[in-house]
Amino acid sequence: MGAVLSEGDFHSKVAVFSSEVHWGDCDPAGIIFYPTYFRWMDAACWTLLASVGYGAKRMRAEHLAMPLVSADCQFLFPARQGDRCVVRSSIARFGGKSFVVAHEVQREDGMALAKGSETRVWGRFDVGPGSRMRGMTIPEELKALFRA
Amino acid sequence: MGAVLSEGDFHSKVAVFSSEVHWGDCDPAGIIFYPTYFRWMDAACWTLLASVGYGAKRMRAEHLAMPLVSADCQFLFPARQGDRCVVRSSIARFGGKSFVVAHEVQREDGMALAKGSETRVWGRFDVGPGSRMRGMTIPEELKALFRA
Amino acid sequence: MGAVLSEGDFHSKVAVFSSEVHWGDCDPAGIIFYPTYFRWMDAACWTLLASVGYGAKRMRAEHLAMPLVSADCQFLFPARQGDRCVVRSSIARFGGKSFVVAHEVQREDGMALAKGSETRVWGRFDVGPGSRMRGMTIPEELKALFRA
Amino acid sequence: MGAVLSEGDFHSKVAVFSSEVHWGDCDPAGIIFYPTYFRWMDAACWTLLASVGYGAKRMRAEHLAMPLVSADCQFLFPARQGDRCVVRSSIARFGGKSFVVAHEVQREDGMALAKGSETRVWGRFDVGPGSRMRGMTIPEELKALFRA
Repeated sequence: MGAVLSEGDFHSKVAVFSSEVHWGDCDPAGIIFYPTYFRWMDAACWTLLASVGYGAKRMRAEHLAMPLVSADCQFLFPARQGDRCVVRSSIARFGGKSFVVAHEVQREDGMALAKGSETRVWGRFDVGPGSRMRGMTIPEELKALFRA
Repeated sequence: MGAVLSEGDFHSKVAVFSSEVHWGDCDPAGIIFYPTYFRWMDAACWTLLASVGYGAKRMRAEHLAMPLVSADCQFLFPARQGDRCVVRSSIARFGGKSFVVAHEVQREDGMALAKGSETRVWGRFDVGPGSRMRGMTIPEELKALFRA
Repeated sequence: MGAVLSEGDFHSKVAVFSSEVHWGDCDPAGIIFYPTYFRWMDAACWTLLASVGYGAKRMRAEHLAMPLVSADCQFLFPARQGDRCVVRSSIARFGGKSFVVAHEVQREDGMALAKGSETRVWGRFDVGPGSRMRGMTIPEELKALFRA
Repeated sequence: MGAVLSEGDFHSKVAVFSSEVHWGDCDPAGIIFYPTYFRWMDAACWTLLASVGYGAKRMRAEHLAMPLVSADCQFLFPARQGDRCVVRSSIARFGGKSFVVAHEVQREDGMALAKGSETRVWGRFDVGPGSRMRGMTIPEELKALFRA
């Protein structure tokens, strides 16, 4: 799980993504349908990137991509329609071409709802979205932008 | 289309729902996948109800529901990842047991993206969500709450 | 509504798209969340195109697109988790650059669940998905492929 | 990861859930948006339950639920629009009140696309979906139904 800090972990900036549980995000049990958390984690990862200058437009213009290697989530407390939430996202670890993003989802009153991580590769499309994508060594300059 | 005003149309309060186009809301053409607008319209309708005191908790506690009769949307300009949007929602018409909600989706710079409507029935579950639901005559007191 | 036949309407082949209502497609009322029908209609439209030789791979290779002008749906009977459904899709009308697809959603026992239409433009990306897209006059040879 | 067999693992029946990658399941990179796999895994889990006699109707009638504790997925190869897939699901482990479902997603030509697991609790709603839910000890008779 990405949220467990260990020696060598990266001391990262934290980005905050706001969300709200909508009617259509909930299932017949009246609580959030769990893939919704992964939708939020993906959007929150883009927010983290944007917070260091890599917004959607730049990613697109520079043909950058960050495909997934894996993702996981622990569900701590059921969210219900109308719950306002924040996802706090940070870099848990940088590898050569990959990185791990840790996400913590809280209700606005501080109740912890979920906790997950995504492992992604830093990549570039040959000629734009949809074309062949290659993993790239993450530049030290890029890593430095995330340092808290 | 619900946005065309005609005699007898209701002069309604307008509620504002904020949203943002996320990576996962877009399709391989790089623009918003259109069912996303209907997800937003549904959430915006709940926001409109909440703005007059009928939030998710009250709807749940009082076993209230607002099932759909029909929905439509015109797509005016393609939205892209990162676009911040607002949905302005208002009552276009009240019938006996049904009502029409008009929705206008704009990008934060004012560009009109989409325009749609939902026709819904005002209903109540017999014993809570999932049980039998019946349409109800909309009380005049409720209608009055939406008057601008 | 695309399903009403009038003079000049196109006598179209009908494609069948199969789907099932999953747990996560349903909302706290225990019935299908309505944007799901639009997701199905979109997928069913691609099935209709594939049925005349324009599958996803060809569309991609030839940089073809079919962006939406509008969409609408009437909800006739609530679908529940586990319902197996078919969407029957056909061309309701061809314009110069646009076309209307009519969709009928039935439960496997024949119960009509929903009925909708999509108006789309026939277009081509300049250099592939994500690049600029232009509407094109629909070739008569293409129209002929859909004739029943 | 649920797919690693170890002593004490349960020798389970395998259920097969069929799916297809639709246009709207893909993101601007032209490949499957990863939360789609979790939507499939959830639906596949319901299929596994149905395969031993616990279909959606029975689950509903008996107020049964299977809320999530955690979920994870490894993404092995990118799926594209039009790919027909199967999810093979089985019980990896039974605990007292919880169970782990292992899922393997393959393209119809056998290419492994993803591999994940869900940890769930076996529970019952007090008075139906939306009401309070309690975890229950999984009956041995129920476990036996899944034995290969």
